Amino acid sequence: MFHHQKVLQYPAKPDKPDALFAKQMQEILGGQYGEISVALQYLFQGWSARGEEKYKDLIMDTATEEIGHVEMIATMIARLLEGAPVNEQEEAAQNPVIGAILGGMNPQHAIVAGLGPRPTDSNGVPWNAGYIIASGNMLADMRANINAESQGRLQVARLYEMTEDKGVRDMLSFLLARDSMHQNQWIAAARELEEKNGIIVPGSFPKELEADNFSHSLINFSEGEESKEGSWANGTAPDGGTFKYEEAPTAHGEKQELNPAPEYMYPK
Amino acid sequence: MFHHQKVLQYPAKPDKPDALFAKQMQEILGGQYGEISVALQYLFQGWSARGEEKYKDLIMDTATEEIGHVEMIATMIARLLEGAPVNEQEEAAQNPVIGAILGGMNPQHAIVAGLGPRPTDSNGVPWNAGYIIASGNMLADMRANINAESQGRLQVARLYEMTEDKGVRDMLSFLLARDSMHQNQWIAAARELEEKNGIIVPGSFPKELEADNFSHSLINFSEGEESKEGSWANGTAPDGGTFKYEEAPTAHGEKQELNPAPEYMYPK
Amino acid sequence: MFHHQKVLQYPAKPDKPDALFAKQMQEILGGQYGEISVALQYLFQGWSARGEEKYKDLIMDTATEEIGHVEMIATMIARLLEGAPVNEQEEAAQNPVIGAILGGMNPQHAIVAGLGPRPTDSNGVPWNAGYIIASGNMLADMRANINAESQGRLQVARLYEMTEDKGVRDMLSFLLARDSMHQNQWIAAARELEEKNGIIVPGSFPKELEADNFSHSLINFSEGEESKEGSWANGTAPDGGTFKYEEAPTAHGEKQELNPAPEYMYPK
Amino acid sequence: MFHHQKVLQYPAKPDKPDALFAKQMQEILGGQYGEISVALQYLFQGWSARGEEKYKDLIMDTATEEIGHVEMIATMIARLLEGAPVNEQEEAAQNPVIGAILGGMNPQHAIVAGLGPRPTDSNGVPWNAGYIIASGNMLADMRANINAESQGRLQVARLYEMTEDKGVRDMLSFLLARDSMHQNQWIAAARELEEKNGIIVPGSFPKELEADNFSHSLINFSEGEESKEGSWANGTAPDGGTFKYEEAPTAHGEKQELNPAPEYMYPK
Amino acid sequence: MFHHQKVLQYPAKPDKPDALFAKQMQEILGGQYGEISVALQYLFQGWSARGEEKYKDLIMDTATEEIGHVEMIATMIARLLEGAPVNEQEEAAQNPVIGAILGGMNPQHAIVAGLGPRPTDSNGVPWNAGYIIASGNMLADMRANINAESQGRLQVARLYEMTEDKGVRDMLSFLLARDSMHQNQWIAAARELEEKNGIIVPGSFPKELEADNFSHSLINFSEGEESKEGSWANGTAPDGGTFKYEEAPTAHGEKQELNPAPEYMYPK
Amino acid sequence: MFHHQKVLQYPAKPDKPDALFAKQMQEILGGQYGEISVALQYLFQGWSARGEEKYKDLIMDTATEEIGHVEMIATMIARLLEGAPVNEQEEAAQNPVIGAILGGMNPQHAIVAGLGPRPTDSNGVPWNAGYIIASGNMLADMRANINAESQGRLQVARLYEMTEDKGVRDMLSFLLARDSMHQNQWIAAARELEEKNGIIVPGSFPKELEADNFSHSLINFSEGEESKEGSWANGTAPDGGTFKYEEAPTAHGEKQELNPAPEYMYPK
Ligand SMILES: [Ca+2]
Ligand SMILES: [Ca+2]
Ligand SMILES: [Ca+2]
Ligand SMILES: [Ca+2]
Ligand SMILES: [Ca+2]
Ligand SMILES: [Ca+2]
Repeated sequence: MFHHQKVLQYPAKPDKPDALFAKQMQEILGGQYGEISVALQYLFQGWSARGEEKYKDLIMDTATEEIGHVEMIATMIARLLEGAPVNEQEEAAQNPVIGAILGGMNPQHAIVAGLGPRPTDSNGVPWNAGYIIASGNMLADMRANINAESQGRLQVARLYEMTEDKGVRDMLSFLLARDSMHQNQWIAAARELEEKNGIIVPGSFPKELEADNFSHSLINFSEGEESKEGSWANGTAPDGGTFKYEEAPTAHGEKQELNPAPEYMYPK
Repeated sequence: MFHHQKVLQYPAKPDKPDALFAKQMQEILGGQYGEISVALQYLFQGWSARGEEKYKDLIMDTATEEIGHVEMIATMIARLLEGAPVNEQEEAAQNPVIGAILGGMNPQHAIVAGLGPRPTDSNGVPWNAGYIIASGNMLADMRANINAESQGRLQVARLYEMTEDKGVRDMLSFLLARDSMHQNQWIAAARELEEKNGIIVPGSFPKELEADNFSHSLINFSEGEESKEGSWANGTAPDGGTFKYEEAPTAHGEKQELNPAPEYMYPK
Repeated sequence: MFHHQKVLQYPAKPDKPDALFAKQMQEILGGQYGEISVALQYLFQGWSARGEEKYKDLIMDTATEEIGHVEMIATMIARLLEGAPVNEQEEAAQNPVIGAILGGMNPQHAIVAGLGPRPTDSNGVPWNAGYIIASGNMLADMRANINAESQGRLQVARLYEMTEDKGVRDMLSFLLARDSMHQNQWIAAARELEEKNGIIVPGSFPKELEADNFSHSLINFSEGEESKEGSWANGTAPDGGTFKYEEAPTAHGEKQELNPAPEYMYPK
Repeated sequence: MFHHQKVLQYPAKPDKPDALFAKQMQEILGGQYGEISVALQYLFQGWSARGEEKYKDLIMDTATEEIGHVEMIATMIARLLEGAPVNEQEEAAQNPVIGAILGGMNPQHAIVAGLGPRPTDSNGVPWNAGYIIASGNMLADMRANINAESQGRLQVARLYEMTEDKGVRDMLSFLLARDSMHQNQWIAAARELEEKNGIIVPGSFPKELEADNFSHSLINFSEGEESKEGSWANGTAPDGGTFKYEEAPTAHGEKQELNPAPEYMYPK
Repeated sequence: MFHHQKVLQYPAKPDKPDALFAKQMQEILGGQYGEISVALQYLFQGWSARGEEKYKDLIMDTATEEIGHVEMIATMIARLLEGAPVNEQEEAAQNPVIGAILGGMNPQHAIVAGLGPRPTDSNGVPWNAGYIIASGNMLADMRANINAESQGRLQVARLYEMTEDKGVRDMLSFLLARDSMHQNQWIAAARELEEKNGIIVPGSFPKELEADNFSHSLINFSEGEESKEGSWANGTAPDGGTFKYEEAPTAHGEKQELNPAPEYMYPK
Repeated sequence: MFHHQKVLQYPAKPDKPDALFAKQMQEILGGQYGEISVALQYLFQGWSARGEEKYKDLIMDTATEEIGHVEMIATMIARLLEGAPVNEQEEAAQNPVIGAILGGMNPQHAIVAGLGPRPTDSNGVPWNAGYIIASGNMLADMRANINAESQGRLQVARLYEMTEDKGVRDMLSFLLARDSMHQNQWIAAARELEEKNGIIVPGSFPKELEADNFSHSLINFSEGEESKEGSWANGTAPDGGTFKYEEAPTAHGEKQELNPAPEYMYPK
């Protein structure tokens, strides 16, 4: 059960309107790695957690914070749109700067939302749940989370470069910090789990059922042997095995061919 | 540029038809973490790679292999459907086992594909590119790949439990091995990059622009302090900072409120 | 069965080309609340109607009209694109007004449709049937329709502000009128049904099976008690009950926790 | 900013496992009118609310509650899956009851989520933000909410019929009650706004700009005159106008025809 | 502008209820090549047609008919669901035949639509406009239509095999006939256009701007030379050129490599 | 199994950066008829092919080539983005040309991909597998392929008009040529199959089960008789039958009406 407090976790006040940046900022609200993604990913992971309580609590602590980040960015976008030159179409025909703004802004910010945020990415594609994962395997999910926070922080850093607005940058500097913490915490949790269950997910699948002569070979499917020199092709692998390099791929299977289809499937 | 060899990388021959398992196996073909996802994710990463050649080659080696895995699973599904009781509707009314198979199979395997594989997940949802990422940041992408191979191997392990077919299990044992290798290799590459650029993505964003008093605090947004005892709330963080635990969240921002909308947006 | 007449229900002639407005107008063609949505929503409701004939006829009268509205807007968009500066890329580099138009227009209007309308919203997202509902409950569907016509007329009003083209505005003034009628008619129908079956959908679910001590309480989940002063927190509720206000939420359930997963699901 | 409490708002304990019902119940979790939809719709409406504080507070009170309903249903689904016969494929070949369960269950509940809930509808289609609306017009949004709670309660009522499990029914009886309250409250709020701004959305669009001879006519586009006898074709309309009935549609426009396309669009 | 007649174009009466077939039949209603696809594809093509009137009329004749086919199949599905054992969950636990039906039916047919049709495919995936095309090139669109009617008739033929219901088969025999006519007519129209504008779309692109030494070569990218013996590798090509066969692909380009990214994109 | 060669099939080097064209070119990478579509469509067709080996080999030859075309276009887009004015937001406020570029470019090219290609269309909509078909009927699939190459070449021709960049045009001239070849080859293959199995797909459905008095009539559903004069309304049809023209549609069915719904579906 949740409770809501109306003061934001951190200020979300732009210095001035900027309809183009409002559009670009949608990426970290409703994009593949935006705040809706991490909020719902962590909620589903937390509600599905079946292991030790401390992981469940860590996930729910973070999930709940993330709903507040959705709130902060939604607020920032709404404020960036206050004062946007939406109905200056006529003037835009003469003034190329206004024209560029009108041509570049997200039309749904005006037509659909009346100057509010949208649950979409920076191109207007609606958020969908195919972006998130709660797998029932704690280490797999920690890795999903490390990835999400890495992609997320990368996008925030790029947005930071794309604006000069001090108010916007202030909020982004906070999000960068929280994304650092979240990378830190998921990495710490993953390391704990790797020590317990091994480096390969899932750790409990019986090794003898795996075709383990294929578990440590880098196979040269793309011409050129530059990849041969990496730490992934020689020496000890993270799971303790020994990396090998195969200079040319071998086809172990049979020809890819199928039997004729029955007549009632109308192959002709 | 690519070349194709008709012999499969590994045998894909089931012992007998199984229309229900054909449906379930679609998950690792066209699902969120299926083979289409890793193939296209690695291809886009490889084609976008701007750094050292050895990473690009590693990625392209693996991407190219994965197209061959799509081929293997597509072939297995087609063969599992050969002999499926598609047009025995009448008989199914009397025979509950046939009824359960007909009721449970993917109708598109018959109606749309004529007993072939579908580019969808196990519920028939078409694969879409919102599943994949090529970010232009090598460490971020290695983490995406570690995650993808972890989720993927987990799903293969579960499918292994859900069938007794020896031919199917043989192919799955091979995929489990390759997923082990791919986890190993991406982890090795990530470690290299972390040593060079630091543990936090992106490593080159200037630390002084981040609100760094928020970079190491776990904040207790979900009641209960179980998470306080984890390695993520005490001691040294992966990036070298020191973890803190905040027993109660603080709201640093202002009230979430907006100015009135202009009349031409028709708020009334 | 349907018949088609080639004269439009109302003129759809713009005064001059406007590729940006063509893009924006896509919202009321193929957006969430565009004409494709109401046309298909009403068609499915009409074909699924199992109650009194007069409702079915009302719905089919309106559904059939809406297909003609799709036609009008599709025509308007095609005509707004006639004469658009699609292939003046070179000139655009010098002329910022042309540049803004080219940069802002929907590229698919040229590349995919050759200056025709697209079955998408104003950001180019394809229309999908997740926008519509035909529930098999007449009052629920009337409410869906009241909502659709309200959102739709709101969007048309905003578009009216965003253009000065007299021909476009003339057509919009007609659509505004039809949306007024459709709001009026669905409200009238809903009132009839509410009188017959009660205000709460579905009206026939046995009241004694509902946990009715929770049926009239506003619970204060968001700090601040401003909502306490509304007509929804005091006095008689629309269904005849008495509204209550709960100053603090109560958790009636048990702790959110799950049993461990079986080993064959590979939780580790 | 949000806070989380681990005790559920209401108990979510089934009497026994039921993998088929777990699949069906997904509809009210991640379907078009499931709890994710209302939670996110209300959050976006609340964050975008620019009018009187009491509406914003009402919306945020309800939005916050709904996140807790997502939690309850997610928990119920996880518990319905505990003990599901996922890996009894072999036995299923002999036992048609187990076969029907295995054939009918959502494969992703096992393969992807390891016996956890999914952010999808009952057919496995991922939730997407095309289901929700926050329009910046308070009355339009209240109507969206009345519709959402009507569709939602209807679906809960149908699910109630489709199970005999007392624990499940107990939770559904609570959700039915809250949906009654939410219908009541949004209707009360809509009535207030209709009194202030008029019955037609948006209320502030200048009447003289509307082609108002078309604002009150029901036009007989579908053969048969049953709809002529309704309250929507005679007498006073909700907005105070007078309904008319047109026995035959008139085409007021010009022929639907377009000019030839320019050669550089390659029409041939 | 459209008019609606309530008598169906052809009878749509099943002999008896069949919830599983209702689910399967959704494919030709709301699937990739279902009737919604052809109806909307032809409507958009007709409204976008800029050439000779006779093509526009032909397309609109057919488009209008197809809306009536959507109506017939929607009606058939609704009637197949009348009497479906939706609420016999308890009984299903004992009776495997009922269990198989309940496990296999589309849950949304009951929960969402109350025994009505859904605007989705046979797996419950909502119809979307990414299935259709109106390109502004008449020959290209005729080819899209030939394809659509071929895929559509193939699916109807397969469904015919999957039921013994005489009423259903009678309607399918009509749809098979109309799909024959539609294949015939689009092929006839395509032949006319090919004679006028040439076999290659678009016919008016200047031949001298094409790298025409690559316009007639089949290149052997997949090992084995079986394809060398086809009519596509020897002799005169449909456009009048001469087919060639290249035994081994040649790479004409440069190495696939990119320049380093700028620092502000945070590649590290 | 596949192998990769790092030299491109054809050069992909633009003369200079062009962020707007990079956005537009996405259409032929990840749009409905882009290279991802043909690559995956042909792969699935090839892997599903159950007939003569020569067709399978032809399809796989082409499929494999198409993966290389995805590579070429992905490379071109990445290179068009090198040097794009992504972080010149401030300067753009003064310089309308830069403003138009920034306003018009795809924000994800910078924020998500760090100046790389995206697996989406020109509006940023992710590619999805609903675009492709592998039907298990060889002639149906050849027709899908003829359509895909026609739409694809049309889009390339339009893009050719929209740029003056010689490097870009050089690559497009190669793609135009390959699309000519692919149209040629699929048409040749379709003709072979039509000679063997007849012009109507599927050719093997028993003619006596079709309601063949409806197989050759064009019915005048859209007012006006222009379509009567086409080759599709008179004379011999492609399948050998005789075309007829019906001046007015006949409704052969019964009224579109349904029985009342059971109470447990809550129609009220
Ligand atoms: Ca290599
Ligand atoms: Ca906590
Ligand atoms: Ca409150
Ligand atoms: Ca009527
Ligand atoms: Ca070959
Ligand atoms: Ca006609």
